[in-house]
Amino acid sequence: MKTRGRVFLVGAGPGDPELLTLKAARVLELAHVVVHDRLVSPEVLALAPPTARLVPVGKAPTSHPVPQERINEILVDLALGGQTVVRLKGGDPFIFGRGSEEAEALRAAGVPVEIVPGITAAQGAASVTGVPLTHRGLATGVRYVTGHCRSDRPLDYEWQGLADARTTLVIYMGAANIAEISERLIAHGMPAATPVLAIANATTPRERRLASRLDRIASDMAAARLTGPVLFLIGDVVSLYRSSPAEMFTQLAAVHPPLAHA
Amino acid sequence: MKTRGRVFLVGAGPGDPELLTLKAARVLELAHVVVHDRLVSPEVLALAPPTARLVPVGKAPTSHPVPQERINEILVDLALGGQTVVRLKGGDPFIFGRGSEEAEALRAAGVPVEIVPGITAAQGAASVTGVPLTHRGLATGVRYVTGHCRSDRPLDYEWQGLADARTTLVIYMGAANIAEISERLIAHGMPAATPVLAIANATTPRERRLASRLDRIASDMAAARLTGPVLFLIGDVVSLYRSSPAEMFTQLAAVHPPLAHA
Repeated sequence: MKTRGRVFLVGAGPGDPELLTLKAARVLELAHVVVHDRLVSPEVLALAPPTARLVPVGKAPTSHPVPQERINEILVDLALGGQTVVRLKGGDPFIFGRGSEEAEALRAAGVPVEIVPGITAAQGAASVTGVPLTHRGLATGVRYVTGHCRSDRPLDYEWQGLADARTTLVIYMGAANIAEISERLIAHGMPAATPVLAIANATTPRERRLASRLDRIASDMAAARLTGPVLFLIGDVVSLYRSSPAEMFTQLAAVHPPLAHA
Repeated sequence: MKTRGRVFLVGAGPGDPELLTLKAARVLELAHVVVHDRLVSPEVLALAPPTARLVPVGKAPTSHPVPQERINEILVDLALGGQTVVRLKGGDPFIFGRGSEEAEALRAAGVPVEIVPGITAAQGAASVTGVPLTHRGLATGVRYVTGHCRSDRPLDYEWQGLADARTTLVIYMGAANIAEISERLIAHGMPAATPVLAIANATTPRERRLASRLDRIASDMAAARLTGPVLFLIGDVVSLYRSSPAEMFTQLAAVHPPLAHA
């Protein structure tokens, strides 16, 4: 009789391995197999036990991504084969990342699954930049959206609600569409001077930042060549960031190499 | 000459001590003093070193809360006195919780301060209930707001934007105002049948849940006497929760004692 496997859907956090939870670190030590995304940092992957098999399923510049249905099958097959599987996802498995689809597929196949939350990229970015996600008088709440849409579809937001100046807006996967997003937010009443912080690879040695404002972020992004997995923090809380936009931009251009295209 | 102290503003997470980050656990071990809120669970406080002094500054049923300005002073004074201070806050220090005000006061006093993010109560609730905060086809984003307002002021949301059915709405500190919040959301177009999950003390042994829908949550809350630090998850993602509302309510009424008033 086969030993029954199980799957832990684990948030790998923003990149710094110290931002894993104690539980994530503990279940990682139990893993026979680690199935991971592209957004999981090499520093976190280095914590997998040397005996564990690493299975990358993320999108990479030179290869096609593994389709979601195939990832679900891989997880089910490994668990039914008796393996203890850690499915590592950047950030939190239940915020973007499609972790809940994997959980449903596993439950449908009778595989025990446990969710281990993770620090989001937004929380990681906030902690290292000093920009809070809420702050009395500046933001009464925070909202996470994706700036990415399914192939060839237009961005489909309820723009009026998105342009609420009292809510910090965090945009994931928005680099390709930031020109349209910023234009539409301004058209729906968000002030053009609203400060914006773009950040890539927050909490890792590869971190890059670009401070700008809503009416300039698209052109500043193009000039800085800040592409790849960029997170945008938009709202008055970004005014608490310590560098002036001009200084920051100069520093970036002078000090950091262009971010690799992803 | 005095040794210079420092302050770590640390997210204690939702309650389960295993959901602390590795970094939070590490800096907690360095603490001479731990200054903590009421929302930090006893299980997390038990991880403080036996030599550390615990300073509670949270609101309690029988005492007045310590005013924010006094908390800022306490942190500054301890650090200038050479102490390594861990300021523990439920959830994440930069989402609600006023951590950024403390960080500003510390910086103004020349005290080194470091932010350590924490798993939010919403993420904790999602991980134990299986309700994702985003899910393809059900929610393209997630939004955290407070349902609490400064004394005697009316709730001041941009209601139309808040009623966006494609965004999971997480309401912190909303138990007292849930009747008004749910009525207004319905009035602004959110379907009355939208599923709602109320949860208190998620991830701890004191966890309680109440599954309902938008047009019934206020009366169900009153009947269940689910008061105290309750979190509301509102949106179609809650349909992925496994118990039917009626069953859940019966289970709660039968199994759990009423939650103590806080």
